[in-house]
Amino acid sequence: MAIMKGPQAFPRAEYLRRLATVKSEMARREVDAFVVTSWANITYLTGNVTRMHSLHGLVVSLHEEEPTLVVRGMDAPGCIHQTFLDRGKVIGYPESLIGKPDKNGFDAVIDAIYDLGVASRGLGLELGNLPAPAAEKFRRRLPEAKIIDCTKTIDWIRGIKSDLEIAVMREAASIADAAIARAAEVIRPGVREADAVAEITAAQIRGPNGGPAGTNLKPFLMCSSPRTGTPHILWSEDVFREGSQINIELSGHRHNYVAPIMRTFSIGVPSDRLHRLHEAEVSAMDAALNAVRPGRTCSDVANAFYRTLEKHGFKKESRCGYAIGIDWMEPTASLADGDMTELKPNMTFHLMLGNWLDEDFGYVISESICVTDTGVEVLTQAPRKLFQL
Amino acid sequence: MAIMKGPQAFPRAEYLRRLATVKSEMARREVDAFVVTSWANITYLTGNVTRMHSLHGLVVSLHEEEPTLVVRGMDAPGCIHQTFLDRGKVIGYPESLIGKPDKNGFDAVIDAIYDLGVASRGLGLELGNLPAPAAEKFRRRLPEAKIIDCTKTIDWIRGIKSDLEIAVMREAASIADAAIARAAEVIRPGVREADAVAEITAAQIRGPNGGPAGTNLKPFLMCSSPRTGTPHILWSEDVFREGSQINIELSGHRHNYVAPIMRTFSIGVPSDRLHRLHEAEVSAMDAALNAVRPGRTCSDVANAFYRTLEKHGFKKESRCGYAIGIDWMEPTASLADGDMTELKPNMTFHLMLGNWLDEDFGYVISESICVTDTGVEVLTQAPRKLFQL
Repeated sequence: MAIMKGPQAFPRAEYLRRLATVKSEMARREVDAFVVTSWANITYLTGNVTRMHSLHGLVVSLHEEEPTLVVRGMDAPGCIHQTFLDRGKVIGYPESLIGKPDKNGFDAVIDAIYDLGVASRGLGLELGNLPAPAAEKFRRRLPEAKIIDCTKTIDWIRGIKSDLEIAVMREAASIADAAIARAAEVIRPGVREADAVAEITAAQIRGPNGGPAGTNLKPFLMCSSPRTGTPHILWSEDVFREGSQINIELSGHRHNYVAPIMRTFSIGVPSDRLHRLHEAEVSAMDAALNAVRPGRTCSDVANAFYRTLEKHGFKKESRCGYAIGIDWMEPTASLADGDMTELKPNMTFHLMLGNWLDEDFGYVISESICVTDTGVEVLTQAPRKLFQL
Repeated sequence: MAIMKGPQAFPRAEYLRRLATVKSEMARREVDAFVVTSWANITYLTGNVTRMHSLHGLVVSLHEEEPTLVVRGMDAPGCIHQTFLDRGKVIGYPESLIGKPDKNGFDAVIDAIYDLGVASRGLGLELGNLPAPAAEKFRRRLPEAKIIDCTKTIDWIRGIKSDLEIAVMREAASIADAAIARAAEVIRPGVREADAVAEITAAQIRGPNGGPAGTNLKPFLMCSSPRTGTPHILWSEDVFREGSQINIELSGHRHNYVAPIMRTFSIGVPSDRLHRLHEAEVSAMDAALNAVRPGRTCSDVANAFYRTLEKHGFKKESRCGYAIGIDWMEPTASLADGDMTELKPNMTFHLMLGNWLDEDFGYVISESICVTDTGVEVLTQAPRKLFQL
């Protein structure tokens, strides 16, 4: 039997609006067909959140209202179920393309380009993310096409969210907040890190009481003493101890939109240095938030942070954040000195103030934020404090 | 202060043994320096399980005992802590390489190649996974190097595990089993899918009572009615109902080694078709397991499965499994008709018998298995049944 359509995260009109923006950019750059291979960009244009481990491509043609999604056959029912696409626009390719040295799923994508009649026109590819042999296959099998590099074209379009997307990101933020609250309840001396993470992760999936559930998970980062000087470690095999410091980065997920948050926890009284760094960072975060408004640049926000932090006698080497949305980071704007991206309403960022000062000492705090018409909305709302447990 | 070394998953001798095998292959192919960019291959050669989101590379030189790991500065303490490498062999590159259009972390990797004195020799790259602009950067900045494509070279070496690795995979399998047992406890009519997944995921992190904890998570796949005809959906926003069928694929993790498992659950009495398919698959699984022994091929195992399944009146389109180890799938051998890879002791596979017959009907069962000197060891040990809840 045919699979039915599932509930959609956004109405059809929202996807058509997004596609119209992409097509307008395609027309400007004389791209007739755009092969989108980035997973996040496919989610954006179709609503698909099926985990596609095999090669796949979304072919956006200037000459068709709906794009064509080419995926491994076994993934086609999931894509029909989850996306707004007409079922005829989801093409499942056969198993004979799996695990072969000479053929793969991109051959099916190329076949679809021929079927759509756009094989000898301007062809957009996300070359920046495409492995070299794949790019070569497109060139070899589409000799008449004029290939145009469209890396990050859609990522930049994704930068300004619709109000519907912001509503979903608020839900994601409420899930992140619930997980931070759970962390404050379960991190205790004598508890295995893994047992605490089990509880916190469960909260990321359940979401807040009576609220929306998380729809996915991203790696849960927990850097506890003596690992607080580094950001990207998952939990360890240790047991929490009196005096331990714990830096956590986690996120809430809704329909693949992500709202990250970072908080620092101390079992017992924090050291004087940690306390001073926390005070400095919170004060510098206020300065950064005050700097957010349409017309300002990413660089303005970063420098407001850096200047205030330096007044407190601290320095941060890394950028202060980055654009967020589907699948966590958008590889576009950075809250960094010299990034002249202009802030516009409904841009969203992870204001990420993690600061790793020594090999064995660092501190984290962050918020997911949204630029509004007049300033900023902080989406995450967990207490902005150094948690003492 | 300098960060201390953390507990290591394997002794130094184990890593040196793995490196010796890689270097021997490098020498055969006249590769003096091998830039390893695959995350799983870096874990294999160093023990690193830090989540490195930024560009990185492990430079294995024929002329050095230990390889050189080049990572973003903030990740260096984590890599020093987790790996067997001398701290001088972990190079953290500066923040000035992050978020720039013209420079990135691969420039630091190339600098390290010059520093190691191997810039004008045979240079191995994993070109199959490297984005085209990155491959171009290596060519441009290393004009004297003779570039040799070493895609999957280490992946194939990883295929035969040491006894130490098998012991870790047994632990991972015990975690997967604990999560399946939890699923049978918490999937009930009226429960939100997310609330059940929260419990099952917590079990994947806690591990079995008194046993090892999970050290990472991979996407938890739950395809419930009407989505059982597709494999790669995460949980949905639905509530379980009387009569629901639930197909689960999950995994246990230890030190980045993964043991996956699939089981099918039915709330209430399963349909006759589901029951018959289950009986056929279990019988065909027995045939496949009986076919596993050194000297046989992957194709032999797959065909033992297919022939038995067909005797029961069913067919499976997709392959019956694939090599597993670090980070789930190894992109090498498939349990598929025509894959002539010879089975050897300590090869491990996901014997993956998921079978998606209609858009809205499928069934899953699988085991993580290990080839022994005389046959097979089934690592996962959850009851091999159609769970009726």
